[in-house]
Amino acid sequence: MAMPKAPQAFPRSEYLRRLSAVKTEMGRREVDLLVVISPANITYLTGYTSKSGYVPQALLVSFQEEEPTFITRRMDAPAGVHQMFIDRSRVVGYAEDLIANPEKDGWDAAIDLLLDSGHGRGCVAIEARFLQGPTIEKFRKRAPEAKLVDFGNAIDWIRGVKSDLEIIAMREAAKIADSAMHRAKEVIRPGVSEAHASAEIIAALIRGADGKVGTDVAPFHLCASPRTSTCHFSWTEDVFQDASQVNLEIAGVRHGYTSALMRTFSVGKPSDRLRQLHDGEAAGLEAALDAVKPGATCGDVAAAFTTTLRKHGFEKESRCGYAMGINWTEPTASLKLGDPTVLIPNMTFHLMLGNWIDEDLGYVISETFRVTENGVEVFGSFPREIVQI
Amino acid sequence: MAMPKAPQAFPRSEYLRRLSAVKTEMGRREVDLLVVISPANITYLTGYTSKSGYVPQALLVSFQEEEPTFITRRMDAPAGVHQMFIDRSRVVGYAEDLIANPEKDGWDAAIDLLLDSGHGRGCVAIEARFLQGPTIEKFRKRAPEAKLVDFGNAIDWIRGVKSDLEIIAMREAAKIADSAMHRAKEVIRPGVSEAHASAEIIAALIRGADGKVGTDVAPFHLCASPRTSTCHFSWTEDVFQDASQVNLEIAGVRHGYTSALMRTFSVGKPSDRLRQLHDGEAAGLEAALDAVKPGATCGDVAAAFTTTLRKHGFEKESRCGYAMGINWTEPTASLKLGDPTVLIPNMTFHLMLGNWIDEDLGYVISETFRVTENGVEVFGSFPREIVQI
Repeated sequence: MAMPKAPQAFPRSEYLRRLSAVKTEMGRREVDLLVVISPANITYLTGYTSKSGYVPQALLVSFQEEEPTFITRRMDAPAGVHQMFIDRSRVVGYAEDLIANPEKDGWDAAIDLLLDSGHGRGCVAIEARFLQGPTIEKFRKRAPEAKLVDFGNAIDWIRGVKSDLEIIAMREAAKIADSAMHRAKEVIRPGVSEAHASAEIIAALIRGADGKVGTDVAPFHLCASPRTSTCHFSWTEDVFQDASQVNLEIAGVRHGYTSALMRTFSVGKPSDRLRQLHDGEAAGLEAALDAVKPGATCGDVAAAFTTTLRKHGFEKESRCGYAMGINWTEPTASLKLGDPTVLIPNMTFHLMLGNWIDEDLGYVISETFRVTENGVEVFGSFPREIVQI
Repeated sequence: MAMPKAPQAFPRSEYLRRLSAVKTEMGRREVDLLVVISPANITYLTGYTSKSGYVPQALLVSFQEEEPTFITRRMDAPAGVHQMFIDRSRVVGYAEDLIANPEKDGWDAAIDLLLDSGHGRGCVAIEARFLQGPTIEKFRKRAPEAKLVDFGNAIDWIRGVKSDLEIIAMREAAKIADSAMHRAKEVIRPGVSEAHASAEIIAALIRGADGKVGTDVAPFHLCASPRTSTCHFSWTEDVFQDASQVNLEIAGVRHGYTSALMRTFSVGKPSDRLRQLHDGEAAGLEAALDAVKPGATCGDVAAAFTTTLRKHGFEKESRCGYAMGINWTEPTASLKLGDPTVLIPNMTFHLMLGNWIDEDLGYVISETFRVTENGVEVFGSFPREIVQI
């Protein structure tokens, strides 16, 4: 029995639509072959989410052919056959002796494939930010007659506007995040260890919601007193105390699509200063959401938040959010003062209002949303409060 | 109240010992300033495990100074103050406007610090494999009088031989993996969903063992029928069936130190072919462990496995394992035919005997071990069997 195809996360027509958008950009840039390396972009174009990107692998998109070709380590090829929408003949495994081999590596196999498929004299685009200098040099040396160009983050920009099917995945992911945040409200208690609470919350993120399982564990941050001025920390060996504050950043995941959610918890009554900051942030969040509509810019959304927060006597130094989709952040638009990106329906963002004012005061709140035809749809439904335990 | 220091994972003397080993290598290479970028190497030299490495950050090790200096995004600096053994004045946060800024980024701040600290004319070593070409160009351009050299994976090689304190952390991590593997044996049942079982196993990895919590979630792979020929997959929306096979790869983590463990589960009686493969692999595993002693090479260990497996009529194409420590794989020695690395006491390896023979037959078994004065210590104690449910 050969490896069967997995139930596909999206229909073939959806992947062909995405490829078509990428090929339009290839045509504009006169690119014959695009070497996609970003794991999120490979997920976008094929449905593949297996975690083999720690070794060289690439999706080769030919302008002339309907389906792309994937080359990866041989032991990972069956996962490609199983999960990608493409024909099994288009998943190529390279020999295991290219692993931990100082002479040759998987990029050599990718270049061989590029040459064998007749693209050695064409215009070949790479995603240079995913390649080390010597690897780019290797492409130049081994395909000297190819015109090598950088495709930059063009695919990430194309991903920025979601299809209705992608929006469904992000809604499902948000329901999972909601469900796990409710679980957090049940398990954060004085005397409970941060690790125990984290185990329960992460388990909820995996079990999912409404019969849809969480398909991955996204980055998870639980920053409890005295670490509430940190933001990318995990649980420690501590137990929650009376008067502990807990800043929680979680996300649900469906087939790579990620919806994040942040809330601040207080064991007992929050301090006056934390309450004041929350009031300003919650008002700023409403103002930012009110500013979301087609035609407004990302900068406008950030300005609405910043102006409102300032009225409450606070500043936020970091940006107010970023485009979100496959594997959390998309490296494109920021909800940042001055960002000129014009909002278009079905763009999706994490309005990330975490604010680490000083070593004594840190607070988090966030929502993941999409731009609609005339405003905004917030994916989550968890109350915008300091969750008092 | 300023951010307090966390309870330190290791005493100051341990970090100074590690730094001293690195400075010896710097001296040998006549390096004045080493710019450490690898997150695992930063953990090694400071204790820092917060997840801020997705933006530019660096640990600057001066040959002349006792303590290094850490530069990171401002919102992450408090985590550095909290977790690193170094003085708080040595944790520098760069401005948030360097995030998502096409003109300047955190590397500019790191180069500013390098220049301000008087190293603009010295020999500056970087870890080039963690930098994109344009960033290396930026170092060259902005510090034109510095002699820029690549430190390669020299720190990773130094990390290869563990101290007794590091071995304790790896033993603790292995107990956590054992405990979670026992949990897997309880929860893998026909009719149970892969997601539910994964939630329980991952929760066990976080709760830890013997009062020591798992401090992180390592990569987790559960490849169940019909996906037993894949290896970097996660749970799906399927439920286990009668006759399902499950290949499980997990790891416990203590303060970054990771001990991995793989076992194959069978719901009901395993097939004859799977049983034959297991017999060969288990015998090969014993032979490999018997070959471990100071003075033997990594290649000798692989040869012992390969020869024994071949007697049972099977081959394994991929390497038999790799050096293991902080954040799973160390990019140094491989348990691979011909690898000339000579074993030294307190080197630690993941003897990874996962073998994906074809699309119908995949099997996993592994142990994490250290080289002792006269042989081997296997960290885990889970039976080396096909776990029959």
